[in-house]
Amino acid sequence: MKMISAIEFRNEKESRKSQTNDLEFDKIVLSIIEEVRSKGDNALRAYTEQFDGVLLDDIIVSDEEIDEAYSLVSTAFLASLKKAEQRITVYHEEQKERSWFVQQEKGILLGQQVTPIERVGIYVPGGKASYPSTVLMNAIPAKIAGVSHLAMTTPPQSDGKVNPHVLVAARETGVDAVYKVGGAQAIAALAYGTESVRKVMKITGPGNAFVARAKKWVFGEVAIDMIAGPSEVCVLADDKADARFVAADLLAQAEHDERAAALCVTTSESFAEKLAAEVMRQLDELDRVEIASRSIEDFGRVIVAESKAEALEIVNKIAPEHLQIMVENPMELLPFIRNAGAIFLGEYSPEALGDYMAGPNHTLPTSGTAAFSSPLGVYDFMKRSSIIHYSEQAFREVADDIVLLAEAERLTGHANSIRIRKGVFE
Amino acid sequence: MKMISAIEFRNEKESRKSQTNDLEFDKIVLSIIEEVRSKGDNALRAYTEQFDGVLLDDIIVSDEEIDEAYSLVSTAFLASLKKAEQRITVYHEEQKERSWFVQQEKGILLGQQVTPIERVGIYVPGGKASYPSTVLMNAIPAKIAGVSHLAMTTPPQSDGKVNPHVLVAARETGVDAVYKVGGAQAIAALAYGTESVRKVMKITGPGNAFVARAKKWVFGEVAIDMIAGPSEVCVLADDKADARFVAADLLAQAEHDERAAALCVTTSESFAEKLAAEVMRQLDELDRVEIASRSIEDFGRVIVAESKAEALEIVNKIAPEHLQIMVENPMELLPFIRNAGAIFLGEYSPEALGDYMAGPNHTLPTSGTAAFSSPLGVYDFMKRSSIIHYSEQAFREVADDIVLLAEAERLTGHANSIRIRKGVFE
Repeated sequence: MKMISAIEFRNEKESRKSQTNDLEFDKIVLSIIEEVRSKGDNALRAYTEQFDGVLLDDIIVSDEEIDEAYSLVSTAFLASLKKAEQRITVYHEEQKERSWFVQQEKGILLGQQVTPIERVGIYVPGGKASYPSTVLMNAIPAKIAGVSHLAMTTPPQSDGKVNPHVLVAARETGVDAVYKVGGAQAIAALAYGTESVRKVMKITGPGNAFVARAKKWVFGEVAIDMIAGPSEVCVLADDKADARFVAADLLAQAEHDERAAALCVTTSESFAEKLAAEVMRQLDELDRVEIASRSIEDFGRVIVAESKAEALEIVNKIAPEHLQIMVENPMELLPFIRNAGAIFLGEYSPEALGDYMAGPNHTLPTSGTAAFSSPLGVYDFMKRSSIIHYSEQAFREVADDIVLLAEAERLTGHANSIRIRKGVFE
Repeated sequence: MKMISAIEFRNEKESRKSQTNDLEFDKIVLSIIEEVRSKGDNALRAYTEQFDGVLLDDIIVSDEEIDEAYSLVSTAFLASLKKAEQRITVYHEEQKERSWFVQQEKGILLGQQVTPIERVGIYVPGGKASYPSTVLMNAIPAKIAGVSHLAMTTPPQSDGKVNPHVLVAARETGVDAVYKVGGAQAIAALAYGTESVRKVMKITGPGNAFVARAKKWVFGEVAIDMIAGPSEVCVLADDKADARFVAADLLAQAEHDERAAALCVTTSESFAEKLAAEVMRQLDELDRVEIASRSIEDFGRVIVAESKAEALEIVNKIAPEHLQIMVENPMELLPFIRNAGAIFLGEYSPEALGDYMAGPNHTLPTSGTAAFSSPLGVYDFMKRSSIIHYSEQAFREVADDIVLLAEAERLTGHANSIRIRKGVFE
């Protein structure tokens, strides 16, 4: 694992290419979207045969298939899943937002009404792995928000069924409908509706390049959560940190994806050396050793900073999805962290804890987008409406100002709607 | 103005085409973005000459030009602007979100840290009109959120200067830099930075088709507020409503844009007839009579519902940007409103009041997107980070569950990062 200075890291970062705009790829994605829009279920069946090698009978997963899923998962899995669900629920309950009102003098009432988004769709990736935790992290906040119709869509396995762990998670969290469709076609179906798939107002959840691009295209037609890029962890460590722990955490990140970035920022060169060696030692123990090696080689870095201030500056520049602070007094550094998706404090708060059990959401802004976006939360499944009530008296006290400002913007219709209430325009 | 039934309205709505995907237009927008990315200020100068007919000297507006702007606006304008600013500030202060923490037993601390987005850019349209109110509605919440560098960009007038009303509004609200650039090139400059324009993390504000499309393309690289479509008002009225007031409000909407929609939903056929006649009568008094006529003809509708319940259902389906409730007891209907950008209650709360003076933001979700999005607010200029701290004891109590769930997802690196802390993995 490479050790570099802050300056070297900055230069490397500059040269990392940001999102590419590949109109040829967009054409394919758009053709899938248009096909689903015009042909509905027939298009979903055709694409599922083409991409997943499955001839779909029903697009909707039956209650029987979900019942059966319960017999296919272990009791221990179900118990851990329920424990995770309970902990995630407790945290997310705290996020619930309330409507509010304020009164002002002379009969003014202003406020903000908060209401759930009515229908939401969750995308859950399929393929070789299964992600029941993705179901928990998307469905729980949606249900707490009060979403009345929560749909989930995921590609079928080669046997035409949906992974049982995912199905069990869906029922446990109250998902209302599960569809066996993946890829851009699933996003199009949720955005526009088909005979089997009910149109939703918002789509959340991670996915491959087709899914991400389709979400970008249907954005505006429906809301989307975020477009996730490669995932990253950044550990801020001093020489008191346990290099074995830090190495294990970096590798947990690296095994996700060849493009995942495992970073450590430290002011201690001796710690950096220990860590780099420890990462190489533990690497061999992983099942997904090839993916993790590639990620560590290309994007894994130990950055040696000159000072604590420089280390903090680098962290804020990176705006990491996951930040682990593994120093003697981690809480002391919290006020200096401006940009991070989730902040893990201390040596017993590894990222994997947050992925499943800690409570906060594991859907976090990736690739530096924590500088301008937030973890998925209950707030993502609600929307606000402004409330405005003015009495006649209160209205009269601002009427002339409105007329003046409207006329500065040359909007006489706006001005007239004020004048007519003052009785100075017929 | 056309009177139609609820069913007729539903059919019309179905046939209104949603966003079109025009890849030829995208190619043009993308070429502008790429050109600005590679050539910086030179590209901005070239496009400003091409699109605005202006040879730019400095891209940044000088302090002297802003000083001069104060001498070009009336004292009355400045006074009304300050009054509006004060009222908008009072409302938006209520939106400020706070960081929070909760303790759980055995040494667990969880929370959410709320921090401002560091650098934000506001787009303000130029052209023939000037929109100082757009400056207020974007800059005030950004500054309350704590944005440290707030930039504004707007196309220059034909004399190479920026409209003085807009400049005065920018200084009053504490905008840190004003650029004389418009269109897709302005969005690209804010998203990627040039020699003169500092890269931001988020872009807000309305604009023409180029601006909207460029925002869609840079989305992901930076955050954006929303992609605004045509604006609409929907008035829910009973037979007690004053048809003259309602007509004036519909026309205030119609004068914005030929594609703007002015709608009234009522259960009273006699009121509908009075209103339709009143709209035609007032129409001639407008400066922008041609735009308003086109809008009323194409999208202006009085929808006569069979019952109050049907009327409310139509309103929620429309999910109007602006909803005016002009019935005898407007507050009684509030609990039934699920989808609306802003809700104006009673006959002295017209939309124009909210556009300038009431306090809440006038940047609202358009074209039915109120079903899944919110007014612009202080929350749009802040982001959240999850906080996770577990003690060793608390960690040990969930460790086995994490290992089990990680292995169900075949992520051994995740499981190892837990095991190594338990001392069962070296």
